[in-house]
Amino acid sequence: MKITVLGAGYMGTAMAVVAQQRGHEVRLWGTWLDDDLIEACERKAPHPRLKLVVDLPTYRSARLAEALAGAELVIHGVNSDGAVPVMTRAAPALPDVPILSVSKGFLESGSGRMDRLDLVVSEKVGRPLRFVHAAGPAKAMEIARGVLTWMTFAGPDAVVCRDAMNGGHMHIGVTDDLAGAEACSALKNAYATGLGLWDGLVGVDAHNARAACFTQSIVEMRAIVHAAGGRDETVYGSPGVGDLHVTGAGGRNRAFGERVGRGQRASVVAAEMAAENLLTEGYAAIATAHRFARERGVTGTPLLDALHAIVWQDAPVRETLAELRLSV
Amino acid sequence: MKITVLGAGYMGTAMAVVAQQRGHEVRLWGTWLDDDLIEACERKAPHPRLKLVVDLPTYRSARLAEALAGAELVIHGVNSDGAVPVMTRAAPALPDVPILSVSKGFLESGSGRMDRLDLVVSEKVGRPLRFVHAAGPAKAMEIARGVLTWMTFAGPDAVVCRDAMNGGHMHIGVTDDLAGAEACSALKNAYATGLGLWDGLVGVDAHNARAACFTQSIVEMRAIVHAAGGRDETVYGSPGVGDLHVTGAGGRNRAFGERVGRGQRASVVAAEMAAENLLTEGYAAIATAHRFARERGVTGTPLLDALHAIVWQDAPVRETLAELRLSV
Repeated sequence: MKITVLGAGYMGTAMAVVAQQRGHEVRLWGTWLDDDLIEACERKAPHPRLKLVVDLPTYRSARLAEALAGAELVIHGVNSDGAVPVMTRAAPALPDVPILSVSKGFLESGSGRMDRLDLVVSEKVGRPLRFVHAAGPAKAMEIARGVLTWMTFAGPDAVVCRDAMNGGHMHIGVTDDLAGAEACSALKNAYATGLGLWDGLVGVDAHNARAACFTQSIVEMRAIVHAAGGRDETVYGSPGVGDLHVTGAGGRNRAFGERVGRGQRASVVAAEMAAENLLTEGYAAIATAHRFARERGVTGTPLLDALHAIVWQDAPVRETLAELRLSV
Repeated sequence: MKITVLGAGYMGTAMAVVAQQRGHEVRLWGTWLDDDLIEACERKAPHPRLKLVVDLPTYRSARLAEALAGAELVIHGVNSDGAVPVMTRAAPALPDVPILSVSKGFLESGSGRMDRLDLVVSEKVGRPLRFVHAAGPAKAMEIARGVLTWMTFAGPDAVVCRDAMNGGHMHIGVTDDLAGAEACSALKNAYATGLGLWDGLVGVDAHNARAACFTQSIVEMRAIVHAAGGRDETVYGSPGVGDLHVTGAGGRNRAFGERVGRGQRASVVAAEMAAENLLTEGYAAIATAHRFARERGVTGTPLLDALHAIVWQDAPVRETLAELRLSV
């Protein structure tokens, strides 16, 4: 197949590498923020983030229409902030093909409510796009270097996307529960930050407490996924349990949480990490997940409420978590 | 309440400490294997395993009837191997009260099939005992030193037990799904060993692969719990997801698995660990879980099948896991 990958960051490039391994004709397009990444690829230097040489036809941001011409599958590898700007620019040149999206997060719709990325992007573009959401525990570095990975593709066109990408180290399942899969992906960044925060407070040797927080996260993710129209099985499979496991185990979402959990004020940590360009999706994800849940009248999310108070309102960590009632 | 704790090892003693904190009148009885532990308690030295001074009336093994006299609640803190020998000796002196059991594992019933511990012990004793199973992520050392812990008590008398032990750092939920809770507790030792084994093979930086194994474990635990007559919600709560999280994160089950995963023959590792008295329940749990599943005609447990082949039949780790098909 002819596959065009939009976004030359971690995940876009990793998915491009996989698509190439499957024998497809792959083009890698970089956004206006990806110039240094594309430039490195052009001179056959290692990709600055993935640290490996990517031998693919690359397109700088101005050549978007050219990159999309004749594509039979589009992979959307832009982060959630970039989804609307990129897809509205892409729309005039976008063929009517499935769009496999690795973006994780809720966005604000025209009505002012937080909603699923596929719905909001389709609304902004002005026509329904054929989004397939790629969920599941999948660190880009590991996908690119061939570590066994279990992903779940969700949506009406999931099978086509699975057939294009499945094989080798990539074990890909499919589901029609697009709502559940997208919600899991958006929520896991928030709860992974929460796991880090909790561990920063209780210490890594407090295994019972860490497991309690993991269990509580799954209980709350299920409640919010239900409100989003998703199903239990998605929460309990690779999009939910699996992805929270991998995201909670490390990375920058977790690092932010740990610093706050050890007692630093969230606003200070966020400012410092933002200055170093290290602030991650988990920070914003707590606000959007909290808003998504509130707008749908979800109750029974005491952990998310506590995270929101700590991270966005500088509530004291120890006192706030001490008052938390688990859903035992 | 008057509470008698049977078994003065890690978990029995930790539960005795909690019961004492709740204001109960607690007696701690040691089995014929616990003499050194009881002796340390008698002279107010730190408990040799929990490393803290336990200030409770203690009873050596010969004083079993005396320890049980007048008990309003019994806590069964003996491991699964000791359950039948201890309870058959206790039976003549055992009042008709709830028995809160922390033992994890399946046992062989009179029919020759593997079955739940409560059913097999009641069968051997010759009358139905009022077992309540204490499930959930609960390391004894952490319970004893006051780390926040989420347990789930399961059975008809669960509420009485919860009311006796709940409070402070102990967050205790209840369920009537005794079958599901016992199965989860028995299975998580097997799968935690599997997680260690997998990590030994793929390395700790292979987060995608580790999350895939965690997800697969939950899928298989659900299938086996169903066959045991248990319910989904138990698998996805603290007895399943939560307990696998804590057990998979560390401990001796995991250590055994890691050594095998790095390529040492399972029979050699088991012999060496047994010689040092370090071999844990996970080793046997893989065999009993596998047998329990087979006897009930459960299919779709490729990970458990692979673990069984590797650990009990010295199948080669890398080749066996390479052939594993995840339930994507």
